[in-house]
Amino acid sequence: MDWHGAVVVITGGAGFLGSALARALVGQGARVTVIDAFLPETGANAANLEGLDVRVVRADLRHDPLEDALAGADAIVHLAAQTSHMGSQADPRGDLAQNADATLRLILAARASAPDARVIHASTRQLYGRPRALPVAEDHPVDPPDANAVSKWAAEQYWLLEHKVHGRPVVSLRLTNCYGPGLRVKDHRQTFLGLWVRRVLEGEPFEVWGGDQTRDLAYADDVAEAFLAAAGAPPGVYNLGGSPPVSLRDLAEALVAANGGGRYVVKEFPPERARIDIGSYVADDSRFRAATGWAPKIPLDEGLHRTLDWFRPRLDRYL
Amino acid sequence: MDWHGAVVVITGGAGFLGSALARALVGQGARVTVIDAFLPETGANAANLEGLDVRVVRADLRHDPLEDALAGADAIVHLAAQTSHMGSQADPRGDLAQNADATLRLILAARASAPDARVIHASTRQLYGRPRALPVAEDHPVDPPDANAVSKWAAEQYWLLEHKVHGRPVVSLRLTNCYGPGLRVKDHRQTFLGLWVRRVLEGEPFEVWGGDQTRDLAYADDVAEAFLAAAGAPPGVYNLGGSPPVSLRDLAEALVAANGGGRYVVKEFPPERARIDIGSYVADDSRFRAATGWAPKIPLDEGLHRTLDWFRPRLDRYL
Repeated sequence: MDWHGAVVVITGGAGFLGSALARALVGQGARVTVIDAFLPETGANAANLEGLDVRVVRADLRHDPLEDALAGADAIVHLAAQTSHMGSQADPRGDLAQNADATLRLILAARASAPDARVIHASTRQLYGRPRALPVAEDHPVDPPDANAVSKWAAEQYWLLEHKVHGRPVVSLRLTNCYGPGLRVKDHRQTFLGLWVRRVLEGEPFEVWGGDQTRDLAYADDVAEAFLAAAGAPPGVYNLGGSPPVSLRDLAEALVAANGGGRYVVKEFPPERARIDIGSYVADDSRFRAATGWAPKIPLDEGLHRTLDWFRPRLDRYL
Repeated sequence: MDWHGAVVVITGGAGFLGSALARALVGQGARVTVIDAFLPETGANAANLEGLDVRVVRADLRHDPLEDALAGADAIVHLAAQTSHMGSQADPRGDLAQNADATLRLILAARASAPDARVIHASTRQLYGRPRALPVAEDHPVDPPDANAVSKWAAEQYWLLEHKVHGRPVVSLRLTNCYGPGLRVKDHRQTFLGLWVRRVLEGEPFEVWGGDQTRDLAYADDVAEAFLAAAGAPPGVYNLGGSPPVSLRDLAEALVAANGGGRYVVKEFPPERARIDIGSYVADDSRFRAATGWAPKIPLDEGLHRTLDWFRPRLDRYL
């Protein structure tokens, strides 16, 4: 897709992935509208948008009018969500409202004022639950380990129905763990890695829970490229993975090395987290790669370096 | 399970399945509480509970207090739902609220005041979408054809998480098309068969859309027996089927024969329904039968006879 002059709306655009995408789109000449509620418990941070020429609409998908922000959109990328697993268990109704009901509101508004926009929806590997085998392809059974996976699956399915029933082009990307500049680092509501980054930059030890689990981390700029590529993919669901899988112990070592020093302690999983833990995950994203030609470009070590370098002078704005 | 003296709460208990279950439980000496909002667009009808010794709590799971109604329950059977497929497409947010958010409210109330109650949840074959092969077992992919399947799947998964994360005994029965006395007959919000029953009793022709699709219909009393049997099954998801599959044409013939006369016209599917139609469905419910020994007892012809005989003197109360 040629993005020059295209009107693109990014929900959750003040988060680290949304802002990376906004930056990539502006770089290609697109006119970008960011919709974000800037909720304190999410990954939204105004610092992520600094110096970017985008329209910012402060709106909550759960109750604010959306039609004007969506009007004339050629593409909508839906990233806004409640992403905390423990948060969803503590407040499943709030999680459902932010993820499923808010998505329905967005869908209804898009029917009214952006009927021709293609949609790229940010889904999650979380909905597969504990993998039955690795790597995980799209036909792996959906088996939610927590309320967040239920609400995120519902959101994805509502978008897919817009394709199946109404013909709108919709691609849903089921993301693996993502990281990069602008990540929420004040706690582990967005990802465990955020808190690791904070601690290592503060010179404090970080906690590794378990340690043998593997993850295939995706760097924000690679994910942004994937969203752009997804606009040209046939409608449907695709996994999106990242760099080759590493154990959390090896990831901890890589982070310490990238920082030029640091300490961590390996701990048992806290029991309330162990009950919803998914073990190891590695995406089989060959369908997406074949459909689009996309491949991640930033190796893990490089991504960690860039992330730390980016946060070092501005960590205080993320605490 | 010995139901004598057991305290059982049935949500949606004023519907045709809920009331059949209430009748069966009262017959076994259980103390039954029916929670129902008596919403005009649902299957609730006060006539279904006439002469039954049950406590009726008029409450809407979306916003009324539930703790008192649930207190001391040994079992909760959750039948209350928005079940109309077209209704869910017309108002997906209302459908989500009635099915998913209301279930979460019920779950949270049950944690507070009925922590030891076992749960039997009424799920639906709708969430499989258009079957990839027949019969359909529990490992068939979930592939919602409409918003109703999304919200009903979410409700089921929220209950299953109560088992997986919190240890509550939960069984979810994915029901095939059900019918019987007390069915909503004024329109096809509950099932196409309801309107057929009405029309044939009124001496008017009914419409058969398509006609070649097969269904394995389950009679209300058999479904009630299945809910009782489910209380003794290992936690998890089970399909529940019914009598041997018949095409809709053969079903129409059987209904006319059971009524001793009647007419119908075969029509093309209306386009807005064709887009969400699932084609033929037959449940593979061998897992449930093996786990419980349950099998349907009422043949289709007999069930249709009983249904018509029951409605004939009181049809006006269902219009």
